[in-house]
Amino acid sequence: MNKRIAVLLSGRGSNFAAIAAAVNAGLIPASIAVVVSNRAGAPGLDHARALGIETLVLPSPGITRADYDSALAAELQARSVDLVCLAGFMRLLSPSFVRPFAGRILNIHPSLLPAFPGLDAQKQAFEYGVRITGCTVHFVDEGLDSGPIVLQAAVPVLDTDTVESLSARILEAEHRAYPQAIALVLSGNYSIEGRRVLRPKQ
Amino acid sequence: MNKRIAVLLSGRGSNFAAIAAAVNAGLIPASIAVVVSNRAGAPGLDHARALGIETLVLPSPGITRADYDSALAAELQARSVDLVCLAGFMRLLSPSFVRPFAGRILNIHPSLLPAFPGLDAQKQAFEYGVRITGCTVHFVDEGLDSGPIVLQAAVPVLDTDTVESLSARILEAEHRAYPQAIALVLSGNYSIEGRRVLRPKQ
Repeated sequence: MNKRIAVLLSGRGSNFAAIAAAVNAGLIPASIAVVVSNRAGAPGLDHARALGIETLVLPSPGITRADYDSALAAELQARSVDLVCLAGFMRLLSPSFVRPFAGRILNIHPSLLPAFPGLDAQKQAFEYGVRITGCTVHFVDEGLDSGPIVLQAAVPVLDTDTVESLSARILEAEHRAYPQAIALVLSGNYSIEGRRVLRPKQ
Repeated sequence: MNKRIAVLLSGRGSNFAAIAAAVNAGLIPASIAVVVSNRAGAPGLDHARALGIETLVLPSPGITRADYDSALAAELQARSVDLVCLAGFMRLLSPSFVRPFAGRILNIHPSLLPAFPGLDAQKQAFEYGVRITGCTVHFVDEGLDSGPIVLQAAVPVLDTDTVESLSARILEAEHRAYPQAIALVLSGNYSIEGRRVLRPKQ
């Protein structure tokens, strides 16, 4: 049966666009069931509508985190979502959401975790002076950027870089890495040993 | 004038061997003035002697850290050492050593710093489940693995890896990276802005 993905975003959702393109190209054997945003004005919603994908806006002001996350989980369960992909969703998810979707939530982070978790990872890396940074697709657990790592891609920092040029190079790597990681996770062709996400021998 | 390197080691000194090979091959325009160890039985000392390089054993038991580090600095100053390269030297260096050689001490660490500082970095990375790790050549300051980064090299973690096979792959990368970084620093052809070590535009 066709797998169903939900994408959660708060902004332009360029990773959503990359995922949608990979779905259309047949690289991800799934459909995007719904795109959810906590912000009605998120440009990513317009892109979803243009692609004929259902959109759902769940504003958060005035709602407790637990209630918000329970409502979000219920919406996704009602749509039989198999995998939740965070794509610039600017909210921390509480156990009310993470537990019902345990092992079925992915996030992409613009650094080689565990280096530079949290906000502005590209700027953190730039200012630290690393020569190599990158991006990380990981399962989401109840910590901050702490779940098991599915895939990482390395990105060089150039002497001529600014935070902006570095961020753009990392974003290109994200757009390649996220669809690959989603395809792997949807295939079910992996095991988790400790914190290691392992592919079986070919 | 020919630059003079000191290598400090406590064990087999495989990075010392890589540096010596790069010197012999003309890739590092310098000579190794002395190899220093805190352990008389360090196999790296035998290799230095076989290459006709002066060796110096400075045992540490019974000596305060400050006195040890002052004596070490005096020995290197007496030999007009330009650059100090730590190659598995299992002692933290105090201000008594770091200050007189400020900006002239390099270390190589088997991870992509700031991830996995300290001991057993390869095992830390393996158990964390990263897909990419590597090595870092950095200037030594008074913190732990915290000085400005000169060069990093990425190394993939394979599903079939053990800590040992991963460590061996990182060590190969170290043997390439350390001589490159030493040649750059000896050339003086860099600047430090904040924590970033920058090469001038070519």
